Amino acid sequence: MNEQHNPWFDATVQQLNDPQNQRVWSVIVSLFGDLAQEKGAQISGSALTRIITPMGIKPEAIRVALHRLRKDGWIESSRAGRASVHYLTEYGRNQSAAVTPRIYERHAAAPSEWHLLIAEDGAGQATLDEVLLLPSYVAVNRTAALGHGPMPRNLDDLMAAGVSSIAVPEWLKLRLFPEHLRDACAALQLDLKKISAPPAGLTPAQTGTLRTLLVHRWRRVVLRHPDLPPGFHPADWAGESCRALVFALLDKLPRPDLTALDGLSE
Amino acid sequence: MNEQHNPWFDATVQQLNDPQNQRVWSVIVSLFGDLAQEKGAQISGSALTRIITPMGIKPEAIRVALHRLRKDGWIESSRAGRASVHYLTEYGRNQSAAVTPRIYERHAAAPSEWHLLIAEDGAGQATLDEVLLLPSYVAVNRTAALGHGPMPRNLDDLMAAGVSSIAVPEWLKLRLFPEHLRDACAALQLDLKKISAPPAGLTPAQTGTLRTLLVHRWRRVVLRHPDLPPGFHPADWAGESCRALVFALLDKLPRPDLTALDGLSE
Repeated sequence: MNEQHNPWFDATVQQLNDPQNQRVWSVIVSLFGDLAQEKGAQISGSALTRIITPMGIKPEAIRVALHRLRKDGWIESSRAGRASVHYLTEYGRNQSAAVTPRIYERHAAAPSEWHLLIAEDGAGQATLDEVLLLPSYVAVNRTAALGHGPMPRNLDDLMAAGVSSIAVPEWLKLRLFPEHLRDACAALQLDLKKISAPPAGLTPAQTGTLRTLLVHRWRRVVLRHPDLPPGFHPADWAGESCRALVFALLDKLPRPDLTALDGLSE
Repeated sequence: MNEQHNPWFDATVQQLNDPQNQRVWSVIVSLFGDLAQEKGAQISGSALTRIITPMGIKPEAIRVALHRLRKDGWIESSRAGRASVHYLTEYGRNQSAAVTPRIYERHAAAPSEWHLLIAEDGAGQATLDEVLLLPSYVAVNRTAALGHGPMPRNLDDLMAAGVSSIAVPEWLKLRLFPEHLRDACAALQLDLKKISAPPAGLTPAQTGTLRTLLVHRWRRVVLRHPDLPPGFHPADWAGESCRALVFALLDKLPRPDLTALDGLSE
């Protein structure tokens, strides 16, 4: 069975594709995270090819990326005659599950429990740098970090203060949401606004292609900015507009059944 | 009438005197603040001489200090024949009243409402330096200040956070209560502990000498450290012990009547 030709699909793939910075292994990670994250879920090699090649990625590049993902412990593959199936390893599932809540969160972060950690000038900065490796912290300046959630028990010689209210100056907003991120977000917003409602008759693989592209673009924005409520956003921050547009489109492209994908691959 | 010789008085003056760093004009400021701060209160030149000379300060040095205090607008003097009287100007009373609550506060600072102001690295430090001129702020490090009371309205591009709880590391305690201050406090504590209960029969001027010395020593400690609750104190901080000893002794040396002081000067 051949893919139906669909001009809307071709245009939308064009719109969502970001060929400048397209790592195939990373696209496959987005794909598995969206379509086959559950234990036991698997995708056939031919379904994978049909979902990914419309993005302009060659089958050979997919094979190389799968090889790398197997080497890195993300994916396992098995063969049944000429057909192959691929699935996430436990490690891959855990890595994927760790970021799923942030990628698929439909609502902007709400004001919440914050604390500040402040280091001594000089020597204390190394301690703070350790803290900033944790996902719940963002740097305020060289000696202060803002943390989400309750205060840690082991303070490692940092001053700690529970925060009851907060006022965020412009320089901090721009530091937390730097220019390259604001630009990437504005570009995604522009691309998403150009996409009209999906027509009827998309194949499961086409839906897979579009969902993968959409999640992939969004993932690279949402995971690169801190999860902070609107009081922290610069005036020109398009992130929340992107979030709304991403989920509006995803909702119109319901996740295809893996059996439907595989049915097409026979 | 001559001053009674009193060995306890001589020993205690010796104990409380700090000849190393004794500015006569500053002693006189302590004296007026303690004995004659109210509008209309005045002290005769001879009473002043009898209160101050037991500290080892010469009448000529008192005259020089009074001259300086008049020139600076703290004190006015008037003459009635050979006798002179001195009193605080309105400016002097206001200056004195501004620090009286801290000097005479019998209880350590209680945990209270705090906020943190955090500056951007580099340029922001100048803004923070301005804030640190206000008496309600202490420096945490080069880019953070802890403030007492509610958040200011004009934040001048600083990040501001209301503080709901606070954990103070050792380096910050030592920064807020530096070594020279801890040493001065420990020395005062040692001196105060050596002083036994005052015997009966002190003259009003002797009581004035002792109160002035006591308030003067305490003033130079209490006004030089930030007014912070016990959670901010280093383990070896003697300030609160000093406070208790100072007020225990002051209570045994009731403030003499100005008329009693003047009566003795005739």
